[in-house]
Amino acid sequence: MAFPTKATHQQTRAYNSALVLRALYDFGPISRAGVARLSGLTRTTVGDVVAQLIGDGLAREVGRGPSTGGKAPILLEFVDAARLVIAVDLGEQAFRAAIVDLRGQIRRVVERPVEGVDGDRDWQDLPLGDLLRDRYDVPAELANDSRAAALAIHLFSDPRSPNLVAIKVGRGIGAGVVLNGELFHGDGFGAGEIGHTVVDPDGAECRCGRFGCLETVASSRAILRRAGESARERGDTLLAARLSANDELTIDDVRAAMDDGDEDARRIVVAAGRYLGQAVAGLIGVLDVERIVLHGSVADLGEPWLSAVRDEAARRSLGLLSQQTTIELAPQIGDLVVMGASALLITAELGLTVAR
Amino acid sequence: MAFPTKATHQQTRAYNSALVLRALYDFGPISRAGVARLSGLTRTTVGDVVAQLIGDGLAREVGRGPSTGGKAPILLEFVDAARLVIAVDLGEQAFRAAIVDLRGQIRRVVERPVEGVDGDRDWQDLPLGDLLRDRYDVPAELANDSRAAALAIHLFSDPRSPNLVAIKVGRGIGAGVVLNGELFHGDGFGAGEIGHTVVDPDGAECRCGRFGCLETVASSRAILRRAGESARERGDTLLAARLSANDELTIDDVRAAMDDGDEDARRIVVAAGRYLGQAVAGLIGVLDVERIVLHGSVADLGEPWLSAVRDEAARRSLGLLSQQTTIELAPQIGDLVVMGASALLITAELGLTVAR
Repeated sequence: MAFPTKATHQQTRAYNSALVLRALYDFGPISRAGVARLSGLTRTTVGDVVAQLIGDGLAREVGRGPSTGGKAPILLEFVDAARLVIAVDLGEQAFRAAIVDLRGQIRRVVERPVEGVDGDRDWQDLPLGDLLRDRYDVPAELANDSRAAALAIHLFSDPRSPNLVAIKVGRGIGAGVVLNGELFHGDGFGAGEIGHTVVDPDGAECRCGRFGCLETVASSRAILRRAGESARERGDTLLAARLSANDELTIDDVRAAMDDGDEDARRIVVAAGRYLGQAVAGLIGVLDVERIVLHGSVADLGEPWLSAVRDEAARRSLGLLSQQTTIELAPQIGDLVVMGASALLITAELGLTVAR
Repeated sequence: MAFPTKATHQQTRAYNSALVLRALYDFGPISRAGVARLSGLTRTTVGDVVAQLIGDGLAREVGRGPSTGGKAPILLEFVDAARLVIAVDLGEQAFRAAIVDLRGQIRRVVERPVEGVDGDRDWQDLPLGDLLRDRYDVPAELANDSRAAALAIHLFSDPRSPNLVAIKVGRGIGAGVVLNGELFHGDGFGAGEIGHTVVDPDGAECRCGRFGCLETVASSRAILRRAGESARERGDTLLAARLSANDELTIDDVRAAMDDGDEDARRIVVAAGRYLGQAVAGLIGVLDVERIVLHGSVADLGEPWLSAVRDEAARRSLGLLSQQTTIELAPQIGDLVVMGASALLITAELGLTVAR
């Protein structure tokens, strides 16, 4: 581990500047005096930093607030569109790019199907960030989808806690771990890779080559495989009717069958939720974070899946801890992966997490 | 979450002072110029901080190093006994107190058996830290045994990584989680409480009231219960001979039987290790820390227990991650709980972790 380097006055100034920015971001419109009260900085320091932020286009004055006796104070707000970020989600089926403002609002989206294109070289070990920085001379940040989404939820939805685990449950399963307001990557950049932790050693073969990984029992692939088996075994169910109509089942088919009272569909969904709950119980035991958020195509199933996750997590973790922990669906704030990609840059470049 | 407060010049100075202290602690004897090179601080700043540290008794000059051409430089070292810490391990059977220096060396130990004494009031919610601070007017820190031990291993043994999980496996099972050089407590102070995560829902009743917690299959209680059952079922084994000689089996009995070739003892120990490996696999998936350390009475069993933990952890976690992770017995550096209690104070009062 490298020896850490000195703290400089520049760092102190950058930190205090980030404090002012955070106050404007979370509490604006707000007066200079209000920022000083929140941050503990002197009015002189706040005035200097605000002048700099206005110069940089990151803050602006927006009229006067109510007077509390003397002259009504000038209010300041954060300028959401002061910088625009290009966020790209490199999906298996399609690449989706968006222009996103500093509040996570998506201004424009373009999407291109991958259509099997592979490029000149294998993507493994491709130094994508370096290539982008060199070619376009702009800051660039990279993360996987689960981590980006976790950061988006942390930055753009109500930050009740500095700690958060967001689990994406779709074709694959992965978690983003936010600790003390920052993404935690682990020593080998593998933190949150819970999809390939074995939960059933006698289970089905996983695409990773081992048997009984969480993905083999709790992902959308697992649910659709079991739903397909059920439909073929018992030709008279709603699942079977949907399968014969569509050739291949989707999560929407499973949801529709379940909503129409198909007991097999319900049983399969609840079983998948219980397996995820088992993994969540493990997470709670290790990290005791008070907020666990679920998203992805499987999470879109809603009930009774969510209750199955919660019940199994509570059943398998220490009562005291699980009572303090909420397990909930992600807030509907938009495309979490694209927003998360922008959140990576926003936090890195503006230092917004320092003050969370 | 409270809004964070400003960074002050005092904080910058404290941080830089901690950097110098850390350089002396890890690399002393070292010259002022060497400290400046390591930390990136100017020689003037290093000189000022060193003068302060010498005044406080935390550093001292210890002669001259080899000349590299000019005048041979004066070397400085950290004064291990500059402060002494009283560290107390409040065990179930006994309270053990020690006087410990800043390097974790134990100078003196006293131990008093608890003998069923309970005190005037229940210990639940007892504000022990406040009581000690008020009564003796000294800094006091508290943590559970697993967390204290993790911090001791991090601070007093080779700090190869800023991240470390140390699992205490004795009558109970708990982990201490060190992330980015600091103990991670979780939102409800329950991080690392993995002993009551359910691994076998059809398993035995746990002292917590639920069924199949990790402690019911992997703790010393679990091993001794199964060893006792085996000894009573099959009267001709080494375990049975030890049981009839001693009334009650200990972990030492199990180890001795195993060393003498008792297959039942070996089977029981390996099964317990495999369950712990399952929990370790979960830990690796969540945190991807490269160093997992095992200690406590069960860890003293050594092989084949350790191999069982490693095998099962590798079998159940993503290959790439588990290859980067070492699972090892704690270094034999002394009484980890008592040393850890002192580490809590040392890191809090001297700011030594800031620079790790």
